[in-house]
Amino acid sequence: MKINIVNPNTTASMTAKIGACARLVAAPGTEIWACNPSAGPATIEGHYDEAMSQPGLLAEIRRAETAGADAHIIACFGDPGLEAARELASGPVIGIAEAAMHAASFIGKHFSVVTTLERTCGIAAHLVERYGMQRACRNIRACEIAVLELENPASQAYAAILHECRLALAQDKVDCIVLGCAGMADLCRELSRELGVPVIDGVAAAVSFAEALVRLGLKTSKRGEWAYPLPKAYL
Amino acid sequence: MKINIVNPNTTASMTAKIGACARLVAAPGTEIWACNPSAGPATIEGHYDEAMSQPGLLAEIRRAETAGADAHIIACFGDPGLEAARELASGPVIGIAEAAMHAASFIGKHFSVVTTLERTCGIAAHLVERYGMQRACRNIRACEIAVLELENPASQAYAAILHECRLALAQDKVDCIVLGCAGMADLCRELSRELGVPVIDGVAAAVSFAEALVRLGLKTSKRGEWAYPLPKAYL
Amino acid sequence: MKINIVNPNTTASMTAKIGACARLVAAPGTEIWACNPSAGPATIEGHYDEAMSQPGLLAEIRRAETAGADAHIIACFGDPGLEAARELASGPVIGIAEAAMHAASFIGKHFSVVTTLERTCGIAAHLVERYGMQRACRNIRACEIAVLELENPASQAYAAILHECRLALAQDKVDCIVLGCAGMADLCRELSRELGVPVIDGVAAAVSFAEALVRLGLKTSKRGEWAYPLPKAYL
Amino acid sequence: MKINIVNPNTTASMTAKIGACARLVAAPGTEIWACNPSAGPATIEGHYDEAMSQPGLLAEIRRAETAGADAHIIACFGDPGLEAARELASGPVIGIAEAAMHAASFIGKHFSVVTTLERTCGIAAHLVERYGMQRACRNIRACEIAVLELENPASQAYAAILHECRLALAQDKVDCIVLGCAGMADLCRELSRELGVPVIDGVAAAVSFAEALVRLGLKTSKRGEWAYPLPKAYL
Amino acid sequence: MKINIVNPNTTASMTAKIGACARLVAAPGTEIWACNPSAGPATIEGHYDEAMSQPGLLAEIRRAETAGADAHIIACFGDPGLEAARELASGPVIGIAEAAMHAASFIGKHFSVVTTLERTCGIAAHLVERYGMQRACRNIRACEIAVLELENPASQAYAAILHECRLALAQDKVDCIVLGCAGMADLCRELSRELGVPVIDGVAAAVSFAEALVRLGLKTSKRGEWAYPLPKAYL
Amino acid sequence: MKINIVNPNTTASMTAKIGACARLVAAPGTEIWACNPSAGPATIEGHYDEAMSQPGLLAEIRRAETAGADAHIIACFGDPGLEAARELASGPVIGIAEAAMHAASFIGKHFSVVTTLERTCGIAAHLVERYGMQRACRNIRACEIAVLELENPASQAYAAILHECRLALAQDKVDCIVLGCAGMADLCRELSRELGVPVIDGVAAAVSFAEALVRLGLKTSKRGEWAYPLPKAYL
Repeated sequence: MKINIVNPNTTASMTAKIGACARLVAAPGTEIWACNPSAGPATIEGHYDEAMSQPGLLAEIRRAETAGADAHIIACFGDPGLEAARELASGPVIGIAEAAMHAASFIGKHFSVVTTLERTCGIAAHLVERYGMQRACRNIRACEIAVLELENPASQAYAAILHECRLALAQDKVDCIVLGCAGMADLCRELSRELGVPVIDGVAAAVSFAEALVRLGLKTSKRGEWAYPLPKAYL
Repeated sequence: MKINIVNPNTTASMTAKIGACARLVAAPGTEIWACNPSAGPATIEGHYDEAMSQPGLLAEIRRAETAGADAHIIACFGDPGLEAARELASGPVIGIAEAAMHAASFIGKHFSVVTTLERTCGIAAHLVERYGMQRACRNIRACEIAVLELENPASQAYAAILHECRLALAQDKVDCIVLGCAGMADLCRELSRELGVPVIDGVAAAVSFAEALVRLGLKTSKRGEWAYPLPKAYL
Repeated sequence: MKINIVNPNTTASMTAKIGACARLVAAPGTEIWACNPSAGPATIEGHYDEAMSQPGLLAEIRRAETAGADAHIIACFGDPGLEAARELASGPVIGIAEAAMHAASFIGKHFSVVTTLERTCGIAAHLVERYGMQRACRNIRACEIAVLELENPASQAYAAILHECRLALAQDKVDCIVLGCAGMADLCRELSRELGVPVIDGVAAAVSFAEALVRLGLKTSKRGEWAYPLPKAYL
Repeated sequence: MKINIVNPNTTASMTAKIGACARLVAAPGTEIWACNPSAGPATIEGHYDEAMSQPGLLAEIRRAETAGADAHIIACFGDPGLEAARELASGPVIGIAEAAMHAASFIGKHFSVVTTLERTCGIAAHLVERYGMQRACRNIRACEIAVLELENPASQAYAAILHECRLALAQDKVDCIVLGCAGMADLCRELSRELGVPVIDGVAAAVSFAEALVRLGLKTSKRGEWAYPLPKAYL
Repeated sequence: MKINIVNPNTTASMTAKIGACARLVAAPGTEIWACNPSAGPATIEGHYDEAMSQPGLLAEIRRAETAGADAHIIACFGDPGLEAARELASGPVIGIAEAAMHAASFIGKHFSVVTTLERTCGIAAHLVERYGMQRACRNIRACEIAVLELENPASQAYAAILHECRLALAQDKVDCIVLGCAGMADLCRELSRELGVPVIDGVAAAVSFAEALVRLGLKTSKRGEWAYPLPKAYL
Repeated sequence: MKINIVNPNTTASMTAKIGACARLVAAPGTEIWACNPSAGPATIEGHYDEAMSQPGLLAEIRRAETAGADAHIIACFGDPGLEAARELASGPVIGIAEAAMHAASFIGKHFSVVTTLERTCGIAAHLVERYGMQRACRNIRACEIAVLELENPASQAYAAILHECRLALAQDKVDCIVLGCAGMADLCRELSRELGVPVIDGVAAAVSFAEALVRLGLKTSKRGEWAYPLPKAYL
């Protein structure tokens, strides 16, 4: 089984980290393809960045589709371009926010999201609604660390995220934590160990759910809104 | 990995069918335990039946927990006793309605449920809300076939279900179908082939999602509402 | 008129207290039957306890139905087994959380619930949704007193509940209080006097509403989801 | 116990009918005062009529308050002026739509409202939301009979209402009916007998619930939004 | 174009201020008529006041309609009588709370309302729902200044409102402010300058939106719920 | 005042038509700039098309911002890139679906949308939620005419749209119609005349509302989620 993971920003070190975290959880026989667009913003921290990342992201979906990917993952917590990608793909497409929130809803009653910058919280809040997670999600917390700082070993990012998780557990009446950025994928295990509650990384969750859907033989329905895009003239 | 599937009714032939369908989709290395309570109603078709099935169902969860189950599945579309089972279990517990609706939301924009008796539709409607699936679920349709009739080869159940699925596709603006009874698990593949859209059986979906959660190392959070039951005197 | 009140736990002293509080408010000519199951948990403080209490509770409904009860009350704030009981009963069945919240909505704009243990708050929150009380209910507060402690005169339970009610009035912008446990029924009058706002006990409210429904000639509709249970083989 | 029922329109024959229906259901010892404003519209069939009826209605509340009424009922299905009346009153104030919908939710899973003119359906729909009855109320149906026609014995109103109730039962998946006009109070018993399901008249329901609240000692909370009106200069 | 602004209270100084603020923002060619009822309460601070103001308010709508008004504005933040006025009017009718909230939703992601007395907050909360602004409105804050105090130069009202706006920005995660009283119309510009975020006055917003609707040729639809009132006998 | 209208597809004839319709409704002194991206799809009929149109659309916003536009309009009924454009712009940005729905809510109680292809209805449904229009919007109807067909005089588009509007009025209990495509802007007046109810074109509505916001001095708040995009490296 071949799973195509697209990091929609153009920071190769983050793509490499995402790929590594995905391979740690992948089942035997699953091949992980990790890629990023050849053009676009270095990180995604708002609506404008999301919009600018989508053509590059969709080109990667199309390329991997041709190469025979069985499923696709969009590895940015805003799940940018998710429905557009579903129009392009034959197999399942999963966003990491989507995967993380659904996983959380199976094993905890209430979660808080811990993410990067305050200005992205509205995007996460919109996904909470879109995925029907209003009851489960109690709070979305920013630790005000920019995405690229997560790549910087000197950034103290781990400590800041741990601190925000502790605040969530103390104040939000939650029993698990959802990490709100693909760039936090490598911190998940350690955070869970220190906090003593489930901490959920969307990259890993998306890999396992994609494997599940492929094994079930389920593909994106082409009957309705996610039918292949209509052929269209382009200027 | 050991997955414990509890059919909460006491009809052994249905338990056997559920086990067989689960094994068809299970990953290599997954052991499927299929069981049913030693006491309780032969089928579950209403609130009273659900209530009467739960002590037997919970005894099976407890037994399998002691025997080392990594995850549990409740194989009745009303997901009876789901939160009570989560209090008992250390690993994940998944209901088949829950699994089917979540799977549907990944690969289709809108689904209809096709189930057995009209009198059970309110139970399914309640789950649609509980799982945040109000946007995704367009209709819940009964074909007025009792659960035990599904076990009867002479019942024409397949034709009636196929007919109701066709009505759903023609009238409900949906792009996939969720089967609303564990007893329909064996019909899923054929229905999907005939209808040309994804048809989702909750038993299979729950097995794959349980495998995914176990592989992710996620267990039921014991920090909040699903902590182990308090010790209690019993009359 | 005969009203059957089932305390779904097996603590006889609590049953006696519930019966006494019910009789204080009952209209002339109303006969109060207070009972509890012969088997089951001593108190109900979670989903597991709720599930285990229901067969015993339903046996009491069935028994009283045969004995000619005109209406039934389920005297535990989680309203366990309410819809199952409605399938069994010909007359009205009312849960005490249901009665208390509806009464509150008639005489106050916003209420907070003050209940026993934090782990039961999710159950109350679910009822708030089920009864359409999301606008009216501002908060659900636990005073972390176990149900049996309410039976213990040395427990300082009254002081703790009074304190939590005062916090609700100071912080939640509410104008009345709903008591979240049948075991608090005897404290209602005194709390209301000290706080100077309406305090609502579900046992008393359920008695008066049951009397109202019986006087109106209204019985549980047998046309739809609450039709009598289908006859069923039992192992 | 004295219950003041205000018919907010100025049609005395309707006031008399409302009073008679109220007395049929009142408990021994309950005194029913039925009145209507001395000025205002003959019937209420829209937002403008509602607005114009309220000063007269509120004068009746104030008058009865001085005369020692223990509770008040607003006997028009739009529940006009309900919150304004609660500011004026010390005891409980109940609207007949409010009472009917709450009663329905105790004894049926889903109801449809059968009312007079299509143009009033939006008012009823707004009340469905305000009282949290969105799950319970499946439809609001107009039989296009003006309110005054209900007072006209030659109007065939009974047949038209019966017909609309039958349509509701056949098409709306409901198990009980709520009558959407105080002027239908006298038809309730006969409709219920013919239809074989509970049919709920808000006038009767409001009387019984008002009695219940008075017996419980519950009064309108004066702590928040329903405090007595501030003293105010009037031009 | 003639726009009729009705201040529904009877305080002429407030009417004058409202008219002046409206003229400041009106387009060239727009004639502003500012009026108030000849009878009714001096200020509107609760449900009772709202009810008592409506006949006078509606008389002003009717009068201006005859005089050829192209649109009407109801200049009280509770938008009293809005739907009743729409029944009477041929052109558009806009409430100032409605206008302010819609304007806020175009230029900010989240707003808080800063209003007069706590007891009116429930009325504003109801409008938030009615206009679908639950996502946009984060809080409704009272600064506990009575409406008439806004007319009193010695009242320090400006400082109190500014303080509450600063609290909203610091605590509510909002990016703009809606002023919750027509009597604050003259403070809007200065508050916006000091706070550095958009501050929205509903009077000005309503004038501009009324002009927009008239220019678009849009009038109140007479096809449904807002058809002209039915002719009716009056006592 | 300069208003920049971006048609996000690359069909110049449609841009010209949009500009012409905008100028018909613009106030004296308003300058209308109508443009479209230099690259991208010829029409937008799904999620993929929306995603591919956004970088070109945003380049037009940025260009006009530099040129001194006071406000921007996105002239495609899916309102693609609306929040991204708000990050870029200093003045207000309005989508035509947003403008049309808000206008409808001022002058009608309920509307139906009549749009092009069924596959775009989900996008419109999402906007209904985002703008809080769930109560007001009763239906979204496709007449299955592709966007480019609207440009084809031989297409019978007018007749098909008129037919669908008539069905909406007959079946949906609505009192006004929202046209669901910028390409229908020129049909609005004639449809309204034939149908006798308000018909709302989003292009015209957006022009008038943009003028209103500019006159009010309201600009996109830069305090929160719509702050200018963070500077970012681009591959």
